[in-house]
Amino acid sequence: MTETIGFVGLGKLGRPIAGNLLQAGYPLRVHNRTASKAEELVTRGAQLASTPADAVTSGGIVISLLWDDASVESIMTDDFLSRLGRGGVHVSMSTLSPEASRRIATLHAKHGSLFVEAPVFGRPEAAVARKLFIVYAGLPAAKERVKPLFEAMGAQKSFDFGEAIGAATTVKLVGNMLIISAAASLTETLTLARNSGVDPHAVVDMLTTTLLSAPIYQTYGRMIADGTADLASSPIPTKDLGLFKETARALSSPAPISTFLLDLRSKPGSDRNVDPVSPMPSAP
Amino acid sequence: MTETIGFVGLGKLGRPIAGNLLQAGYPLRVHNRTASKAEELVTRGAQLASTPADAVTSGGIVISLLWDDASVESIMTDDFLSRLGRGGVHVSMSTLSPEASRRIATLHAKHGSLFVEAPVFGRPEAAVARKLFIVYAGLPAAKERVKPLFEAMGAQKSFDFGEAIGAATTVKLVGNMLIISAAASLTETLTLARNSGVDPHAVVDMLTTTLLSAPIYQTYGRMIADGTADLASSPIPTKDLGLFKETARALSSPAPISTFLLDLRSKPGSDRNVDPVSPMPSAP
Repeated sequence: MTETIGFVGLGKLGRPIAGNLLQAGYPLRVHNRTASKAEELVTRGAQLASTPADAVTSGGIVISLLWDDASVESIMTDDFLSRLGRGGVHVSMSTLSPEASRRIATLHAKHGSLFVEAPVFGRPEAAVARKLFIVYAGLPAAKERVKPLFEAMGAQKSFDFGEAIGAATTVKLVGNMLIISAAASLTETLTLARNSGVDPHAVVDMLTTTLLSAPIYQTYGRMIADGTADLASSPIPTKDLGLFKETARALSSPAPISTFLLDLRSKPGSDRNVDPVSPMPSAP
Repeated sequence: MTETIGFVGLGKLGRPIAGNLLQAGYPLRVHNRTASKAEELVTRGAQLASTPADAVTSGGIVISLLWDDASVESIMTDDFLSRLGRGGVHVSMSTLSPEASRRIATLHAKHGSLFVEAPVFGRPEAAVARKLFIVYAGLPAAKERVKPLFEAMGAQKSFDFGEAIGAATTVKLVGNMLIISAAASLTETLTLARNSGVDPHAVVDMLTTTLLSAPIYQTYGRMIADGTADLASSPIPTKDLGLFKETARALSSPAPISTFLLDLRSKPGSDRNVDPVSPMPSAP
């Protein structure tokens, strides 16, 4: 269990996940476009790879956790694919479109390597606390090989969504849409509470110990009541609502709410009122 | 604690709550516009009151659980108010506008009687299972007197939102908006899952044991995945989104999402796609 793992993408979530792997005893070869973000991991023993392909070990496991479809597809150069080679496994943890995930799987199949999509639910704090959730899909042989890594990465639980690539990325988009929608409605409702003279913290305490006793409502409810929610400034909701909407459109699946939430984010100053996931505005 | 309690409004939720009070040993005088709905309670020992005022005991406690602002205000005749008299307490469990709740409180104050707003969260099944949540507000003397009733009614927990009438009704509107929004987003997302070939039950199982491990998501997630959700045919979401929107408008508090969800319900066949809280449609 001490084979060297490649890790490409050391963003806010990638760094603590890679750190967890190091701590679990896995030698790592890490790559990030901005190399300075690798410094702490290198200090802790990771090897620095100068390119994504350089992070790959022949027949080994390489993990990617990048921003979007294009960033993951851009690392899959001929060099990357030929180094990974027969029997190598690429584990993609990014939030991708199911379509891109299937394109990536096809590319691997052509080169004899394997692909597991394994998007992850959790904020960076949850990675540090080893409270992540991973949903995954792929061929059984590939999944068997990478499954032990999930707990080492910091997953408190992982969920197998079968063999068909696209299933786990869809579940990730479903989950993110539900989180973004919940946070937006929390903002609107807690703003009304505050404007009515009702302490939003008391409302959050009540709701999150009763009907809505879920981590998402506890985390975002507190942040929204405190005015420290970061969803308005984060590009993630816009990206993921867009992926949800496009995925739904391709299947003629109705998507009125995700479309509306996406529109609201692009017109924060319009007469449609406020960005739904901004910190609570007060009444004029 | 065996004083006779008045109970006006024996709808789907009123009947099991009144039944819980009977079972807890409280003699009841019950009234319902359609008297046949009182039959089972009368069989179990409740007295049938021919008018709302007839359910009232002088200086006693009368509970109302009716459809809307107008129905509660309509029972408050001179007869009702003079019978209740000095020291009597009206406990309103309906989902009202904060404004109507304040009007009702003012009317009671003029007649020397007391008012507690105590809206209730829970479906009829939850009343039977004694798993309700009650949020309440009112003057301390009135609250002290009625508080023991909440557990007898079937509340697993109750939450005091202070003295200002309107606070608890606002919290109820906040909670209902969050529930309706969550159910609508669950419908949209589980529909995408199903149209993508992913079993919506597996998605619900994953989400409701992780990020969204809350009763609302468990109850509605399962119903939506099963195709048995009743929110599309229920008039409650439309009524309560309307109350939320009007309350927000009066305070210049932004309400884009509640307004959008309300619009969607009034245009289920429009090109804005589907009623967000209908049973899952499938892809064409």
